[in-house]
Amino acid sequence: MPADPATPAHTPAPLLDPRADIVELTAAIVDIESVSGNERALADAVEQALRIHGPHLEVIRDGDTVIARTHRGLDQRVVLAGHLDTVPVAGNLPSSRRSRKGREELVGRGTCDMKGGVAVLLRLAVEADAAPMDLTWIFYDHEEVAAADNSLTRIAAEHPEYLAGDFAILGEPTSAGVEGGCKGTMKLAVTARGVAAHSARDWVGDNAIHHLAPVLQRLAAYEARRAVIDGLEYREALNAVAITGGIAGNVIPDHARIDVNYRFAPDTTAAQAEAHVRQVLEGLDVEIEVFDSAEGALPGLDTAPARAFLAALGDDVRVDAKQGWTDVSRFAALGVPAVNFGPGDPLLAHTDDEHVPIEDLHRALEALRRFLTA
Amino acid sequence: MPADPATPAHTPAPLLDPRADIVELTAAIVDIESVSGNERALADAVEQALRIHGPHLEVIRDGDTVIARTHRGLDQRVVLAGHLDTVPVAGNLPSSRRSRKGREELVGRGTCDMKGGVAVLLRLAVEADAAPMDLTWIFYDHEEVAAADNSLTRIAAEHPEYLAGDFAILGEPTSAGVEGGCKGTMKLAVTARGVAAHSARDWVGDNAIHHLAPVLQRLAAYEARRAVIDGLEYREALNAVAITGGIAGNVIPDHARIDVNYRFAPDTTAAQAEAHVRQVLEGLDVEIEVFDSAEGALPGLDTAPARAFLAALGDDVRVDAKQGWTDVSRFAALGVPAVNFGPGDPLLAHTDDEHVPIEDLHRALEALRRFLTA
Repeated sequence: MPADPATPAHTPAPLLDPRADIVELTAAIVDIESVSGNERALADAVEQALRIHGPHLEVIRDGDTVIARTHRGLDQRVVLAGHLDTVPVAGNLPSSRRSRKGREELVGRGTCDMKGGVAVLLRLAVEADAAPMDLTWIFYDHEEVAAADNSLTRIAAEHPEYLAGDFAILGEPTSAGVEGGCKGTMKLAVTARGVAAHSARDWVGDNAIHHLAPVLQRLAAYEARRAVIDGLEYREALNAVAITGGIAGNVIPDHARIDVNYRFAPDTTAAQAEAHVRQVLEGLDVEIEVFDSAEGALPGLDTAPARAFLAALGDDVRVDAKQGWTDVSRFAALGVPAVNFGPGDPLLAHTDDEHVPIEDLHRALEALRRFLTA
Repeated sequence: MPADPATPAHTPAPLLDPRADIVELTAAIVDIESVSGNERALADAVEQALRIHGPHLEVIRDGDTVIARTHRGLDQRVVLAGHLDTVPVAGNLPSSRRSRKGREELVGRGTCDMKGGVAVLLRLAVEADAAPMDLTWIFYDHEEVAAADNSLTRIAAEHPEYLAGDFAILGEPTSAGVEGGCKGTMKLAVTARGVAAHSARDWVGDNAIHHLAPVLQRLAAYEARRAVIDGLEYREALNAVAITGGIAGNVIPDHARIDVNYRFAPDTTAAQAEAHVRQVLEGLDVEIEVFDSAEGALPGLDTAPARAFLAALGDDVRVDAKQGWTDVSRFAALGVPAVNFGPGDPLLAHTDDEHVPIEDLHRALEALRRFLTA
């Protein structure tokens, strides 16, 4: 089919207008699909928006991470960060709007975790050119995958100065409340061994998949601890998140594996967490190996910068424990007090019905704006 | 690197010499890798050998199946069949020879199941040009996979005349004894459903993998029936042969599946077998669906052609139940009495240490030769 002569020969990269209506801006960010590993197009668009609309910012591109900083010589520096990637799409892109039970919502992968937060940060990055503190804005990649692949791991090693500050805010979904600290997370491979044989003569072999029965039984029966720290309740969780086994349809398999994910309260170190999982599975004929691990972070709400942030937001802001692991833990490890604050119900993160209430977007934007102009 | 001028520019297809020493012939066949779906090179070599060395044979190529027939106008026709494919290689190719506990063995994928048998059949196909009956030799593909993909399924539908005869012998491993009938086999998908959620908040979701715990528990605890039919004991077997589940490392999975393989005695129909598995898993919150099924075959050793075969072999031949499903069941369904007879211990089929005793190859060759020259 010949091209319409009115159509330009070259389609330019999608442009984000950070000063657009916050809902339109969120939808535009959501509609640039960016499942972990595929963040380039969105990083390009964010970088372009910051360079065009933020003349007061130093903009740095590092892989698919974009960092923007003010250098106004102020006493304090606050870091505001959000990840650009999402978990795999589940037929829920492009985004759509709906009205449900009298509430307006933006629906689609990433609306909640955490492109609503990214939109709020991008808007304020270009807007807040006269804040009472210097600001560092970080839009980063590979958060929804192994901690080792998270771009903040690389940046903390190669350019720790990019992450430095007196206080950090992560735009993860909190329904525009404040969520303190975060649980740690650990992934362990639990492997059972057996002896392969033809499946018509199973008495010659030893079925490795069957050896996983008591492992699943203990996981299914597990009663997770609820830890209360600084008045905030952290609920632990221990789950099989993957299971694999099988050689061929007529072979008794000689190995089978469960990937277990343990989410542990921040009063527990990763070493203690590993010991606990080994205890839960004690006496079973399996091998256990940790292949991914990230420490939690204690709430840290009693530090001075956190108190200043809470004061700016006002008394009616809800303060809870953060259940999901977030990169507040990385800042905590670098000595930077950090909280989670962003639009969207964290219970909807990663679900097929992921969505964000329109009201949350406005509330989060206004609250952060108050802090940055206090 | 320039080609050695002595090297021919074109490497010809590997040649099999069916009159070579039976051990060398078996090794040559084993060394042409032919995991199910990759039988072409071996089918080419077998076809070529039959055309070159069997001037008394009509040779038919049908996909990767090769059929060779005599047409001497004799009263009886015996069908001798063997499959060319193997289960996946487990680092056990090419073949090797070893001496162990005073016994010579040929080691490698397919030596037992069933390229030793294929070698014996190929040798006798070119040798037996004056047998007391007409002969049909069938070398076929896709036996080690779903019954629907087995080339005999296609041939039975499109050319049932190729399979017609008064008696059939399958060269499956029997340690050069006779194994009567075969168990049936059924594969069922057992699927658990749950609700996806972020793995840091598992109380919002419902872990489908955990729902498989009682399924595995029942399979692991299952006590299989032993059925005695015509004096032969068929041991049943019920196993998980594959297990899959998991969406991402931080997601509570909303579905998980076990593939179950049920091997049932030939006094049980496939419909009864399915009802039995459903009963074993009764009351569990899973969906069960049959996706592969093949009836067993009763021993049939009391039929006239079977008795003639046993008489030719002599009294000291061991007669047992066949545990594994074999294509005797297809011949039984077409009204052709059929037995299993071939070199190799069936307990070694599909194992990593698959091998065949050299003595078995000679014994199977001599025994079948007696029958064909009786």
